[in-house]
Amino acid sequence: MNRYDIAIIGTGPAGVSAAITAKVRNKKILLFGSKKSSEKVCRAQEIQNYPGLPQISGEELAEQYQKQLDQLGITVTEERVSAVYAMGEYFAVQASGKMYEASTVILAAGVVQGRTFPGEKEFLGRGVSYCATCDAMLYRGKTAAVIGYTEEAQRESEFLAELAEKVYYLPMGKDEVHLPESIEIIREKPLEITGQDLVEYLKTDAEEYKVDGVFILRDSVSAEQLIPGLEIEEGHVKVNLQMETNIPGCFACGDVAGKPYQYVKAAGQGNVAALSAVNWLTRQKLKKQG
Amino acid sequence: MNRYDIAIIGTGPAGVSAAITAKVRNKKILLFGSKKSSEKVCRAQEIQNYPGLPQISGEELAEQYQKQLDQLGITVTEERVSAVYAMGEYFAVQASGKMYEASTVILAAGVVQGRTFPGEKEFLGRGVSYCATCDAMLYRGKTAAVIGYTEEAQRESEFLAELAEKVYYLPMGKDEVHLPESIEIIREKPLEITGQDLVEYLKTDAEEYKVDGVFILRDSVSAEQLIPGLEIEEGHVKVNLQMETNIPGCFACGDVAGKPYQYVKAAGQGNVAALSAVNWLTRQKLKKQG
Ligand SMILES: Cc1cc2nc3c(=O)[nH]c(=O)nc-3n(C[C@H](O)[C@H](O)[C@H](O)COP(=O)(O)OP(=O)(O)OC[C@H]3O[C@@H](n4cnc5c(N)ncnc54)[C@H](O)[C@@H]3O)c2cc1C
Ligand SMILES: Cc1cc2nc3c(=O)[nH]c(=O)nc-3n(C[C@H](O)[C@H](O)[C@H](O)COP(=O)(O)OP(=O)(O)OC[C@H]3O[C@@H](n4cnc5c(N)ncnc54)[C@H](O)[C@@H]3O)c2cc1C
Repeated sequence: MNRYDIAIIGTGPAGVSAAITAKVRNKKILLFGSKKSSEKVCRAQEIQNYPGLPQISGEELAEQYQKQLDQLGITVTEERVSAVYAMGEYFAVQASGKMYEASTVILAAGVVQGRTFPGEKEFLGRGVSYCATCDAMLYRGKTAAVIGYTEEAQRESEFLAELAEKVYYLPMGKDEVHLPESIEIIREKPLEITGQDLVEYLKTDAEEYKVDGVFILRDSVSAEQLIPGLEIEEGHVKVNLQMETNIPGCFACGDVAGKPYQYVKAAGQGNVAALSAVNWLTRQKLKKQG
Repeated sequence: MNRYDIAIIGTGPAGVSAAITAKVRNKKILLFGSKKSSEKVCRAQEIQNYPGLPQISGEELAEQYQKQLDQLGITVTEERVSAVYAMGEYFAVQASGKMYEASTVILAAGVVQGRTFPGEKEFLGRGVSYCATCDAMLYRGKTAAVIGYTEEAQRESEFLAELAEKVYYLPMGKDEVHLPESIEIIREKPLEITGQDLVEYLKTDAEEYKVDGVFILRDSVSAEQLIPGLEIEEGHVKVNLQMETNIPGCFACGDVAGKPYQYVKAAGQGNVAALSAVNWLTRQKLKKQG
């Protein structure tokens, strides 16, 4: 398989900055995210404290980023990464059902908003899942509920319904819902996931549903879900000043790596993460040469 | 005396960024440096990795910074800081002979280039000095040599010559030398400073001069000279991810705080330092209110 030097997850200021510096340093990179940068960039009305760009709007900043990526010949892979596995020599990156390989990974995925449901953390891996593509086969002939935040969650539910006996879909976002009749749409507010050892019930504000599993398909997954084994400290990926995480070859930057939540701080850390990845690649090469 | 909230030393990307964020957060700031940003900004022919400003020249970046400072009503105090003293409640900042007071300090002074002379570190405070304005009185009736890198060093030497019995001046830069006849100009290369407990000789590539003191007047002084007591680690100011130094209320960012030496990394750290200073001010206020 084609192996990349650096896989970068996220196209906010942190990921864009990492991509630019890595490319200038001639690395073979994969950049996951959106051509339109990030939600948090686009939504800002006026940014006052981005040095060098006085009073710019978020939209304009996103355009500037896009222009710069184009000029450097960097393409954005518009796919969502669902998991990253440290394989020792390299990382396996799972995105929209496909697999990629990269020698290093830079996590620049921003912070997950919104709270988790009571029972979500306790039953993770014991009935609660964040990825239908990954875990649907466990529900062959069983009953599962999907708490779906995105358009993509609906497509994942369809796949799930091909295997499961029964699928409930609880739409959380504002997207229109288009689902086959085999899926039961429940317009209620999920409140809690309960059970003994494994998930048994999903409680809503109106009912209690007997289920074997609950899929929670948000727009973003938290860092520790994305990269198993990643050390978290007070809700953020633990990094040092070189943006190294506890996993060798894996770096993190921007909001995901801690406060303050700021554009230029994210961009600065992305730059450092890229150079640390470049140094890491050099060291690995020298090691191999003995 | 007028007390500022934050004194920022340096107008490279780190200092400019700190100033912008501090001002947006409504703090009363003092920004020391140059209206033209820094040498390292201006000298860059083309910058490829400053996110948001594709292929910009250093001159253009400096102009953008200046424009932004103007828009926010931030003035640059074009003076060189010679020392910062932690006074407990506040910091005393000495610049071009004047004194200022600030509740917090952000050091964004970049890195000092060039090597030190053999004997320089050993005899610092025992005959070697970096500031004629500060130490000239110690050489009343004595002999001193000045190793001068700047135009300003010549003016300092004149002052020294008013007190000392004999002053040698060794010009190191390319500036023309205009000095009164009482000062002896030596066009030789300084090699070493020697002595027993105190400085006794300055050796050059041609001669050995018997002296009581040697003033080394470079364009920049190192961080530990500037702020006594500041903890240094491997040549850089030791900071954590919040840009805090070992001195409460004193923050550092950019090149002075470590590698990599990069524009956007400096700008990102300046932003963090400013927000940390803002938080520090808030905490101090709350403490006082009990
Ligand atoms: C309305 C608003 C105004 C703001 N104003 C300011 C301001 O004036 N000044 C300031 O400094 N800061 C401001 N901020 C904060 C700033 O937006 C954030 O700190 C900054 O965007 C963080 O950058 P980042 O690159 O770390 O993360 P983000 O910008 O959040 O980018 C993360 C990216 O990762 C992608 N991603 C996440 N998970 C995956 C995955 N699994 N696969 C693929 N891609 C993934 C996301 O889609 C997104 O593109 C503002 C924020 C908001 C919301
Ligand atoms: C030719 C060149 C090209 C470069 N190209 C790139 C590039 O393409 N990309 C990149 O990311 N980086 C590049 N760099 C590195 C980059 O310039 C530095 O990392 C960056 O300028 C550091 O910013 P800073 O704010 O920490 O320090 P500086 O930019 O060095 O600013 C320090 C400021 O502090 C002032 N100062 C110091 N002491 C005092 C004092 N006692 N009193 C008052 N003021 C003081 C100085 O006068 C100066 O204004 C380049 C550097 C050079 C020299």
